[in-house]
Amino acid sequence: MDAVRVGQGFDAHRFAPDGTHRELWVACLRWTDDESRGAEGIAGDSDGDVAVHAVIDAVLSASGLGDIGTLFGVGSASRGAGMHGDAMLRIVRDHLSDNGWRTVNASVVIVGNAPRISVRRSEAAAAMSAALGAPVTVGATTTDGMGFTGDGEGIAAIASAMVVRDR
Amino acid sequence: MDAVRVGQGFDAHRFAPDGTHRELWVACLRWTDDESRGAEGIAGDSDGDVAVHAVIDAVLSASGLGDIGTLFGVGSASRGAGMHGDAMLRIVRDHLSDNGWRTVNASVVIVGNAPRISVRRSEAAAAMSAALGAPVTVGATTTDGMGFTGDGEGIAAIASAMVVRDR
Amino acid sequence: MDAVRVGQGFDAHRFAPDGTHRELWVACLRWTDDESRGAEGIAGDSDGDVAVHAVIDAVLSASGLGDIGTLFGVGSASRGAGMHGDAMLRIVRDHLSDNGWRTVNASVVIVGNAPRISVRRSEAAAAMSAALGAPVTVGATTTDGMGFTGDGEGIAAIASAMVVRDR
Repeated sequence: MDAVRVGQGFDAHRFAPDGTHRELWVACLRWTDDESRGAEGIAGDSDGDVAVHAVIDAVLSASGLGDIGTLFGVGSASRGAGMHGDAMLRIVRDHLSDNGWRTVNASVVIVGNAPRISVRRSEAAAAMSAALGAPVTVGATTTDGMGFTGDGEGIAAIASAMVVRDR
Repeated sequence: MDAVRVGQGFDAHRFAPDGTHRELWVACLRWTDDESRGAEGIAGDSDGDVAVHAVIDAVLSASGLGDIGTLFGVGSASRGAGMHGDAMLRIVRDHLSDNGWRTVNASVVIVGNAPRISVRRSEAAAAMSAALGAPVTVGATTTDGMGFTGDGEGIAAIASAMVVRDR
Repeated sequence: MDAVRVGQGFDAHRFAPDGTHRELWVACLRWTDDESRGAEGIAGDSDGDVAVHAVIDAVLSASGLGDIGTLFGVGSASRGAGMHGDAMLRIVRDHLSDNGWRTVNASVVIVGNAPRISVRRSEAAAAMSAALGAPVTVGATTTDGMGFTGDGEGIAAIASAMVVRDR
């Protein structure tokens, strides 16, 4: 059993200020203005895809390979700056493989008022799974108007993953 | 190993306004006024049982069967409206079984000031386990007066689950 | 597969008021004033090590042995009062062993502005792993200035663990 490990991931980002006109990317998908319910894109150096970042942290932590900061760096000079989630997930998949690990599956819950994940839930899961090369499932909920995910200030994601040593 | 999967669940609900006199249901138990420390029931269309909802999302996500919204619908016309947690967990158990999955176990942490989970922790775990047909363990903590779970505005739950393909 | 279980843990604590001059302990390490970015120690009866407490709750929940409150008690008269994280993790290891369980691994994400976990991430993981007698991996993130973990009021930790029945 020691060849199997679980990992925890979490991430939260602030929506960009009104009028920023950034594209909103969550769970490897670009969300239209209508689907975004008025939310702008996410602030930050990368596209701020919280679902992807939480899944990456979960699989890296499970396989003992550090976290998203050790792999991609932090800030505007980081390797992840400007990179979309699917490219990041592909790098993570290769990094695990290079170190003898493989993702069994990952599961992520997106917490926030926008975008309306439920209408494209399967599409998001398929996009993330294709990029990571393992089943990724996507859920979504709100905090009922409470806290920073409830007042529309930001968006968060919590993820679990299971990995197995491949060799 | 690919027959085993992990899943993540999360839910948060707002307590009903003072004077609402709703029954408080959390973790398949009805909590008395004394145990509830003055909190009313939980607002929402179902009984708002965050512990049950988080566990359901964790097992559905682990088995790739969507989330609580896809299974029960959302809003006052949903199949889950007015349904208590034990009935929902039984439906989830059957749904997994119909799709060839079985829950190995689930674990949930309830986050909030009320009710006082610790005094009935074993009873809550037994009730959830009986309904889901698999071991469910229940923990509880506060946020030390911080955030929406600390100021008494609402209650949250975070869950992990493991499932296995049965056939 | 039923010999393997997963567990969820969560904890949050408030930083001590300015001028308290408490030592800051997180993830089994004492953090210097410089590393703490001005944060005082954590309020509470124990050293308030959220990373340790979340991992303990995850492994206890996974093995069906209650939670940190049932094992250590709550409040200033508790067995955990004044105890540091490494001592608590050793007790948890023995408690699991006494009950026929063993931790496969644990993974924890620390959420807050301070201390700067990333600079001592490997050291923290090594300290926690040595105490628990199983691999513990440590990640860290912020909430981008949002909520109680973003305004510097407190610190939180979310953990997952996997355990296996030993006999």
